[in-house]
Amino acid sequence: MYELIKKDGLAKRGVLHTVHGDIQTPVFMNVGTAAAIKGAVSTEDLGQLKTQVELSNTYHLHVRPGDEIVKKLGGLHKFMVWDKPILTDSGGFQVFSLADLRKIKEEGVYFHSHVDGRKIFMGPEQSMQIQSNLASTIAMAFDECAPALADKTYVKNSVERTTRWLKRCKTEMNRLNGLEDTINKNQMLFGINQGAIFDDIRIEHARQITEMDLDGYAIGGLAVGETHEQMYHILDVTVPHLPVDKPTYLMGVGTPENILEGVARGVDFFDCVYPTRNGRHGHVYTNQGKLNLFNQKFELDDRPIEEGCNCPACRRYSRAYIRHLLKAKEMLGMRLCVMHNLYFYNTMMEEIRDAIEAGNYRSYMDDKLYGMKQGQS
Amino acid sequence: MYELIKKDGLAKRGVLHTVHGDIQTPVFMNVGTAAAIKGAVSTEDLGQLKTQVELSNTYHLHVRPGDEIVKKLGGLHKFMVWDKPILTDSGGFQVFSLADLRKIKEEGVYFHSHVDGRKIFMGPEQSMQIQSNLASTIAMAFDECAPALADKTYVKNSVERTTRWLKRCKTEMNRLNGLEDTINKNQMLFGINQGAIFDDIRIEHARQITEMDLDGYAIGGLAVGETHEQMYHILDVTVPHLPVDKPTYLMGVGTPENILEGVARGVDFFDCVYPTRNGRHGHVYTNQGKLNLFNQKFELDDRPIEEGCNCPACRRYSRAYIRHLLKAKEMLGMRLCVMHNLYFYNTMMEEIRDAIEAGNYRSYMDDKLYGMKQGQS
Repeated sequence: MYELIKKDGLAKRGVLHTVHGDIQTPVFMNVGTAAAIKGAVSTEDLGQLKTQVELSNTYHLHVRPGDEIVKKLGGLHKFMVWDKPILTDSGGFQVFSLADLRKIKEEGVYFHSHVDGRKIFMGPEQSMQIQSNLASTIAMAFDECAPALADKTYVKNSVERTTRWLKRCKTEMNRLNGLEDTINKNQMLFGINQGAIFDDIRIEHARQITEMDLDGYAIGGLAVGETHEQMYHILDVTVPHLPVDKPTYLMGVGTPENILEGVARGVDFFDCVYPTRNGRHGHVYTNQGKLNLFNQKFELDDRPIEEGCNCPACRRYSRAYIRHLLKAKEMLGMRLCVMHNLYFYNTMMEEIRDAIEAGNYRSYMDDKLYGMKQGQS
Repeated sequence: MYELIKKDGLAKRGVLHTVHGDIQTPVFMNVGTAAAIKGAVSTEDLGQLKTQVELSNTYHLHVRPGDEIVKKLGGLHKFMVWDKPILTDSGGFQVFSLADLRKIKEEGVYFHSHVDGRKIFMGPEQSMQIQSNLASTIAMAFDECAPALADKTYVKNSVERTTRWLKRCKTEMNRLNGLEDTINKNQMLFGINQGAIFDDIRIEHARQITEMDLDGYAIGGLAVGETHEQMYHILDVTVPHLPVDKPTYLMGVGTPENILEGVARGVDFFDCVYPTRNGRHGHVYTNQGKLNLFNQKFELDDRPIEEGCNCPACRRYSRAYIRHLLKAKEMLGMRLCVMHNLYFYNTMMEEIRDAIEAGNYRSYMDDKLYGMKQGQS
């Protein structure tokens, strides 16, 4: 159950009550694709990183180790040893972006596994069943994420099918939550708004799915090739047609700037691989902009990544040491950068929540954006 | 200063007092080649793994980031953020095994860096200077590790040169320890016994270097291709000719079995890449033998790697989860296995020390060897 605590402009400060504890929003979900945060970060480490929600990928876990295996082992929480909320995506995005030779039909999608080439079928019911086996806190509806540059007729047909799929998802999730051997009988279902960059399709779809009274609503199909301005425009026109008293989740987004702009437009759930992926490449976030620790200028720099940062990397290690680790291809370098970046994102979300509560979100955001731009110049 | 606390047969229980704290022996030094334990294990993690001594490689740090850089950053302890003892090898072993196009002369060795092909010269003085820059607790003498199958004439000439080099090492180390800007003015120097598998050369060399009254004595050139029986034989004939009131270090050794046998022959310092390297390949040590966690039979195994083990991996995660991580090529899998293996080795050394103190080393060793063999059958 979602509770809206405070609004500051369009920015929402909320809390989602779940069987795995409360999620304070706005929140950034930390991506652990295959039931692990890339960069050798464990669920034990997450305790030091202010992580509220871990996000795992249904498609990846379905192909390896297999959701039936995870179920036999007691579900994802027990498997990863993480007792806080977990969100699983629907598998749809990966089916459309990773899998080979996919074929979309009314019943669902036929495709080949990217791991072993095995032929797999996934439709709304299968996606719900897999997510029920994984026993995440929040399941995502199975949708089609249409290509960024698809024409309007394609997008219209795709979105209509996504709506039909969403109804099947809801029916199946209700059935699964009522079964005796379901691990999490309170699994939530979030619907996903689609419509590419077409305002009218987005709005009409938002209205339709809002009527279905789901646990939360995501905006999908953004950050897949359109400009930032297009993304912000779609938020401007779509979010007002989603219920304010439910979580609003912008999928796969994004940079700190994107998140700040998203919050200003009423979004309160985010997820993105940037902090982990950038960390693995030695790119670290600071309030003065991003640093590339491979840069020669850090060779003798004995300061932490960011002065005053209280993350496990900054509390102890210097830029010079981490740079050396990255250059020497020591995994420890990636681990330290990933931990710093997740801490940076999660701390920014904490600041965002404080700013909304204090009613000064806009000035907080302007200052934050200004600081990050200064350092990058 | 080394203190022999107790002998049980030939097994030695000692303590080496250093400026970076005491080392309780027998000890297994944990290898962090390039100033980091491979497998994303930090010096902070070592605090949970009972690590007493970290070992870094002079050659690797000389070529990257450069010992002058490390010195400018305050030495290896400050660089890695580790305040306990560090041993650095001399660089000799890597020069002879890793570098390209090496040429051995009386003054030292000319070779090309394996990182950038740059031509480098390293002799006894250079090795001491580099190790002094790194400011390790214990420096190793620059020696030639002759090929395992070298003929006797080659080995005899090589060992004679190694003795001449050792004298130069001692002179240079004394000079460096007296310089104003030396970071660790109490740097210790261990000599290295060589002689391949020739008893008479080993014994004569042991006598010569013992006369030089160094801080400790290593046996080098073993575990490089000879059989375990040949290794134990060399220990049997050589160790009695090294001073019992100084640390005895068997370089690059080895399996838990090798260590148990080495302790029984009077060795009290060990180092080896096995626990880290095997861990990165999913091979983990237990008191019932080694397990390969890639094995299918662990797919649904919700037990820890070893029941009752108190390492960070076993306290929290299952074999099934770690197996999944390894299969999915998640770095976290390697990290957990490496931490378990180091904890296993360091805990075994603790048991060994207790057994010697209790005067029942032989029966402890027999039981330990029996248990490990049972599981492997």
